[in-house]
Amino acid sequence: MEFSCTRQELLDGVNAVSKAVSARPTMPILSGIYMEVQENSLRFLATDMELGIEYTIPIRATKPGTTVVNAKIFNEMVRRLPDGPITFLLSEDSSLLKVRYFGSELSLNTMNPIEFPVLPHIVEGEHVTLTQGQFKEMTRLVGFSASSDESRPWFTGILWDVNPEYIRWVATDTHRLSFLQGTMVSSTVQEGRQFILHAKTLIDVARLLHEEENPIHLTITKSQVLIETEQMRVILRIIEGQYPKYQQVIPKEYKCRMTVKVKALLEAVDRAALASLGKEGSNIIKISMDGNILTIRSNSPEVGHIHEEVFVDREGDSISIAFNYRYLQEALKVFSVEDIYIDLTGPLVPGVIRPIGEDRYLYLIVPVRTV
Amino acid sequence: MEFSCTRQELLDGVNAVSKAVSARPTMPILSGIYMEVQENSLRFLATDMELGIEYTIPIRATKPGTTVVNAKIFNEMVRRLPDGPITFLLSEDSSLLKVRYFGSELSLNTMNPIEFPVLPHIVEGEHVTLTQGQFKEMTRLVGFSASSDESRPWFTGILWDVNPEYIRWVATDTHRLSFLQGTMVSSTVQEGRQFILHAKTLIDVARLLHEEENPIHLTITKSQVLIETEQMRVILRIIEGQYPKYQQVIPKEYKCRMTVKVKALLEAVDRAALASLGKEGSNIIKISMDGNILTIRSNSPEVGHIHEEVFVDREGDSISIAFNYRYLQEALKVFSVEDIYIDLTGPLVPGVIRPIGEDRYLYLIVPVRTV
Repeated sequence: MEFSCTRQELLDGVNAVSKAVSARPTMPILSGIYMEVQENSLRFLATDMELGIEYTIPIRATKPGTTVVNAKIFNEMVRRLPDGPITFLLSEDSSLLKVRYFGSELSLNTMNPIEFPVLPHIVEGEHVTLTQGQFKEMTRLVGFSASSDESRPWFTGILWDVNPEYIRWVATDTHRLSFLQGTMVSSTVQEGRQFILHAKTLIDVARLLHEEENPIHLTITKSQVLIETEQMRVILRIIEGQYPKYQQVIPKEYKCRMTVKVKALLEAVDRAALASLGKEGSNIIKISMDGNILTIRSNSPEVGHIHEEVFVDREGDSISIAFNYRYLQEALKVFSVEDIYIDLTGPLVPGVIRPIGEDRYLYLIVPVRTV
Repeated sequence: MEFSCTRQELLDGVNAVSKAVSARPTMPILSGIYMEVQENSLRFLATDMELGIEYTIPIRATKPGTTVVNAKIFNEMVRRLPDGPITFLLSEDSSLLKVRYFGSELSLNTMNPIEFPVLPHIVEGEHVTLTQGQFKEMTRLVGFSASSDESRPWFTGILWDVNPEYIRWVATDTHRLSFLQGTMVSSTVQEGRQFILHAKTLIDVARLLHEEENPIHLTITKSQVLIETEQMRVILRIIEGQYPKYQQVIPKEYKCRMTVKVKALLEAVDRAALASLGKEGSNIIKISMDGNILTIRSNSPEVGHIHEEVFVDREGDSISIAFNYRYLQEALKVFSVEDIYIDLTGPLVPGVIRPIGEDRYLYLIVPVRTV
């Protein structure tokens, strides 16, 4: 095994597969990154047996071969390499990977590539193709609503609801819910198909996508999903569990619709959140309205009282309602539009936010009951 | 108490005094920031009884007064205030500080300003004046060599060695030592005076200085030092203890002088430091020389072997020596020059680094004994 490449090329590959390396590997070999050199390509592979990521970069090889190096050490090394050509050479007995640049040489200990688990070969299954831009929009608008509580694993995922006519994504932690209807480039799904994929992993995959218009392909089997781009293959396990019927919780109508500036509302919520500071702090903010003024109130024994006013356009009733500020704040941070609708029905009915201009999307927040 | 100002003006004051608020205050009132409004000024004051910081900003007051607010909450609030004019108003009974902007109002709970300890009034003492630029250079080049081990408090400080003819600063953690001879604008010190001030605090003070050419005044008493600029007053306790005689450890001559590029050496040391990763990692790097090549070697059972070559100009003997890479790395990061001298005498004699162009400075590293 002998090849040359630059630091930046290596960084791309190492960053991509590092997401699949477990912090506490169950077998020593899984602390490694598998590298396979062919004539014009270097394929990186890492897996924690739940998730596998493969990433291929173009290189100039003089001798093919395979090896496994410790992921953490390789990652740190690549970051510190100089600009300019770098040559990699596997020693005669395969025990050392020699890294050469200018007059210097670094010899990394290797592991036996035969021990490294191969990713399953997936060809059979239903196929869905999206643009990478659509995939990224999905993770941005939906991903943050998933739970991080592993005791109910289905809530840590994003539900993919795929039909011949549409694709929908949903995530919820039971306190709020994100819903997006997307568009597909193509699909072989004949009947409705629902499956749950880990939200954090999808967000990690989205970060590796740089070409909005290029395709991203999914192959969906019974228990796994393969996600592919030109450079990357990711294999994820489907999360088991019964997802709640999301259609039933989305209010069909509203009694009050406000048009609100995202920036003004976010700044007011940020200040109202001051009441959450301190030991007896509260996450609850109370919302009420009078004419075209939306009032947000919060208070805590340590901080004091906060009274924020935001100018809105309003049609319909005046409604008082209370929310956990975090669920409002997190959503307001992900919107790329300037204005949103807030639709309310009553103090105990979930509020619905619809970004104006991202109209295939909605965000639902369950209110807090207050005295 | 009633006044107006902008968010940025408040931020400057709050940031400055926050360094003096203890994370674990010994009295509840010390979790606060004292604010004193006069006709054209707002004075902030905070202290943990070891360190006191006062910072004054210009404002437009309609009514003078004093109050104390919780430092953490006030800090968070100021960050979240909108751009534009902000009005502060103390309630009739002094229990709430009302903060008004646009139509909104925030009422912060206050504490009784009478309980707040006043900073001692220091006028008597010896005086030294520096430029703020000189003060900043001192903290940058010397401060990082101080120890963070509070069990020998004098090593957490910077020694000020003031004489009618010169001012010198020294910091050491016993593994390495920084020395700088500076220039004073003026001084009333008649005989030699040595005192130790906490390095971290001096670094914090330096961060608040923005006018290189403006003066910074010190008033030195038996147990305290007052540091003053136009806007700021800082009172520090002098650290007690016997500082080692630093002149005795600085080698007077050398047997080998190398001229080295800082950037190339730092990159090589960063890579050699890879050997410190992992459970059995080592911080030791071995240095040797052959002609105009400086070789750095390190190794560890987990990582492998590292062999780095750096081109140098050399006069004198070829010497092999070993260092803890951290002491080399930390120093190389603070230099603002491109080239340094490294002066060596033998494997067990401290090495001396002199930045070329910062020639009133030297940095000494104690070598590691290796087999």
